[in-house]
Amino acid sequence: MKFTAQQIADTLKGTIEGNENAEVSTVSKIEEGGPGSISFLANPKYTRFIYSTTASIVIVNKDFEATEDVQATLIRVENAENAFAQLLEMYNQVKLAKSGVSEQAFVAQSALVGAAVYVGEFAVVAENAKIGKNVKIYPQVYVGENVSIGDNTILFAGVKIYSDCVIGNDCIIHSGTVIGSDGFRFALQDGGKKIPQIGNVVLEDNVELGSNCSIDRATLGSTILREGVKLDNLVHIAHNVEIKEKSYLAAHNVVAGSTVIGKNCMFSGQVGIIDHLEIADNTLIAAQSGVSKSIKKEGTAHMGSPSMDVMKYRKNYIHFRNLVSLVAKVDELEKKLADPVSSSDR
Amino acid sequence: MKFTAQQIADTLKGTIEGNENAEVSTVSKIEEGGPGSISFLANPKYTRFIYSTTASIVIVNKDFEATEDVQATLIRVENAENAFAQLLEMYNQVKLAKSGVSEQAFVAQSALVGAAVYVGEFAVVAENAKIGKNVKIYPQVYVGENVSIGDNTILFAGVKIYSDCVIGNDCIIHSGTVIGSDGFRFALQDGGKKIPQIGNVVLEDNVELGSNCSIDRATLGSTILREGVKLDNLVHIAHNVEIKEKSYLAAHNVVAGSTVIGKNCMFSGQVGIIDHLEIADNTLIAAQSGVSKSIKKEGTAHMGSPSMDVMKYRKNYIHFRNLVSLVAKVDELEKKLADPVSSSDR
Amino acid sequence: MKFTAQQIADTLKGTIEGNENAEVSTVSKIEEGGPGSISFLANPKYTRFIYSTTASIVIVNKDFEATEDVQATLIRVENAENAFAQLLEMYNQVKLAKSGVSEQAFVAQSALVGAAVYVGEFAVVAENAKIGKNVKIYPQVYVGENVSIGDNTILFAGVKIYSDCVIGNDCIIHSGTVIGSDGFRFALQDGGKKIPQIGNVVLEDNVELGSNCSIDRATLGSTILREGVKLDNLVHIAHNVEIKEKSYLAAHNVVAGSTVIGKNCMFSGQVGIIDHLEIADNTLIAAQSGVSKSIKKEGTAHMGSPSMDVMKYRKNYIHFRNLVSLVAKVDELEKKLADPVSSSDR
Repeated sequence: MKFTAQQIADTLKGTIEGNENAEVSTVSKIEEGGPGSISFLANPKYTRFIYSTTASIVIVNKDFEATEDVQATLIRVENAENAFAQLLEMYNQVKLAKSGVSEQAFVAQSALVGAAVYVGEFAVVAENAKIGKNVKIYPQVYVGENVSIGDNTILFAGVKIYSDCVIGNDCIIHSGTVIGSDGFRFALQDGGKKIPQIGNVVLEDNVELGSNCSIDRATLGSTILREGVKLDNLVHIAHNVEIKEKSYLAAHNVVAGSTVIGKNCMFSGQVGIIDHLEIADNTLIAAQSGVSKSIKKEGTAHMGSPSMDVMKYRKNYIHFRNLVSLVAKVDELEKKLADPVSSSDR
Repeated sequence: MKFTAQQIADTLKGTIEGNENAEVSTVSKIEEGGPGSISFLANPKYTRFIYSTTASIVIVNKDFEATEDVQATLIRVENAENAFAQLLEMYNQVKLAKSGVSEQAFVAQSALVGAAVYVGEFAVVAENAKIGKNVKIYPQVYVGENVSIGDNTILFAGVKIYSDCVIGNDCIIHSGTVIGSDGFRFALQDGGKKIPQIGNVVLEDNVELGSNCSIDRATLGSTILREGVKLDNLVHIAHNVEIKEKSYLAAHNVVAGSTVIGKNCMFSGQVGIIDHLEIADNTLIAAQSGVSKSIKKEGTAHMGSPSMDVMKYRKNYIHFRNLVSLVAKVDELEKKLADPVSSSDR
Repeated sequence: MKFTAQQIADTLKGTIEGNENAEVSTVSKIEEGGPGSISFLANPKYTRFIYSTTASIVIVNKDFEATEDVQATLIRVENAENAFAQLLEMYNQVKLAKSGVSEQAFVAQSALVGAAVYVGEFAVVAENAKIGKNVKIYPQVYVGENVSIGDNTILFAGVKIYSDCVIGNDCIIHSGTVIGSDGFRFALQDGGKKIPQIGNVVLEDNVELGSNCSIDRATLGSTILREGVKLDNLVHIAHNVEIKEKSYLAAHNVVAGSTVIGKNCMFSGQVGIIDHLEIADNTLIAAQSGVSKSIKKEGTAHMGSPSMDVMKYRKNYIHFRNLVSLVAKVDELEKKLADPVSSSDR
């Protein structure tokens, strides 16, 4: 896709300074630039780059005053940062604009498919699945029996959704993510016999899942990710977990069975939460922490494995870093006490 | 699939109380219920829910006595919990009952495919693969050259099995799991040249692997998961590892190259085991622990990174949680000893 | 594939002792052997196995002298270990020799495909993708729009590459790995609105990625893995990360956004690195460590969470293992100091 300075200025309601026919097909950071790319300048720290950038077009604030020659075509707007963000979003929308059902996809006769849907090559939409409007199903996606998918949702290449799961509106699920695999439950007293996993997974609206996540179905009932939950890559969510509205879990998080996580929580990378806990709203957990007890109070921060209050952990850890000298000090005290005279003589 | 109270009562050898034509198509917890669902009551703690549940049918113990009105149709059986488990298993079997080779699958002419096999759309069964009886190969699965798969095994959508691997009978492998990728071995003295990975992966009978696991092939010989081994999601098993009978590894475990894990071990989530170790039978490892030495004694439990005896770790960790006050106490002792009179005066 | 002793001896320029028509179709360790397999003897520790091995052919050093009867056919060469390695490489090359575009693949008309390329069943090569010479694209791979792939690169079954990414020459990417999924970036002050991820991923030459890795595209610009970088399985690389030449990251590593990792680094399993750091060349990080500060000095080693110098960590950790006795000692000192006479009497 190529755009001219004129087209972009029209879209952003900006004014052109330079070549109105300058063409761009990609975006760049101003310090990296590149012919055929468009960039922006908002932060004064980066002003020096506008004189050397090889970007073809740069969006600048209305009041920008050049003190040297500028090669790039400028588009002046009210707020360069916002204008650039608006452009990126439009670019993304154009890039993702796809529709039509490939002849090389498999869509079961009993499936209900909404208007303006895209189904890519070698995707499978199984019996009785319901696909909303404007849904994008990329190649090699698997949508199992009775799965329901809301409007405007995007499933990138190779997503797998097991039978009976429910996906909301405006969700984005990245490649390799698996929704609805069986919970890890075996009857140990019965030789490890598999406990049937009959429930499903429910994703409410505006949920985004990174790539290669694993979200297990409930044993009975539903594993639930509420409105606006966001997961990074390679996150494991076990059977019967519930994550409440707008909580964010970074890469490689592990949440064990039946745990309930509150709203607006933020967990850093590689955090683990054991099973059957309740974590209050607005909880923060530091990277690599392991949570082994419920967190009842809202808005607290935790660190360590097992985790404790983050400030308590940090203070103790400072002393851990100096344990060698603490031990030396104690040994010295011991000596002094055993033989006060000679040790104080030294 | 819909079932009537009569059909279910016949199957469970129970007696109906209420509408014998009541229909259900799903299962529920008694406290959640839902029209068209069947639930059960076994634990007296939940008795109060039977008077308010919206489940259409509830399985109860023979001797259950209602003290208020019950809306649901009841099926009385000897043991409600067992009867419900039996029902779930039947439900699962019916749900998973699939057979036939899709015309949109690719099965190589030289592949041997057993009776009553299911091969879904866009699955690949490559040259010289051998597929046992009643095997279920879901859409988009890849079965490489010379792979052998035993009877009744289920490969869910998108599983990838590299050439020459051997999968036993009655195994279940969840979506996204990769079996037989190359071990992480490079000749550092030789500029990082790849060491060819010529071995394979062997899964014995009754092995279940969660979703998005990675099981590397051996450099030479086999990476082996013995009978009854169960892995949760996102587990990494390196080249030449052996895991013995009925060991369970929870989500995000990492087992490095050539390590041998004994029978009946249980590892919690995010555990890491370094390479070339031997772990005795019946070993327990706590979540997030890192094992850096072989464990010779059977039946022990370990925690920490690097790990130690679990009780030793817990006791030391209690003191770590209070390191700040230990340091304060030592400082106080130091002062007293330097100036015994004034400090005891305070 | 079957080979005779004569064919192998010709290839390795060795001499045969025994049956020149002996046939092998696989390779084995000498202590495991197996009819129809070829093995080698180089390390004197294993000499005893040559008298009992069931391998059909064994490669030995020119000067090997048997002291008992040997059943296997021997091939004598200058250096048995090197000869065996050479054989493994040839075996691998033969095994991976595939070419031709499957009629059941989808290759867009606008895609440019080089000579001698293999494209397996149900693979997708999207609009404007460029595929170099001798590239192997296994079944069910997805190559997005405008992706460019260099010569001789191998993409194993089910790899997913999002639009606009660039893959170098001689790369190997294992099954389930996702390249170019969106970075985990949301405008929290704006209700969690998604920040468009417009950049791409660049893999230079000789990069190998294990299975089920997730490499996120840059927000703007590129996430870059330089020449010779190797990742094990299930590794997460966030948006805008750069990993410099020949660094190795073991399984389950997590590198957060915009961090730059130097050359020739080696990170053990389950390491986490937070965002916006710089890690110097030749850095070593121990398993399960968490790096929270930039590492400026080259060639250092680190351990712990948060990490510190590896020797400092080890020394402190020895004392952590004995915290219980340190606390007891301090309590004892306290008692003595409070009542010097009675406690020294005990």
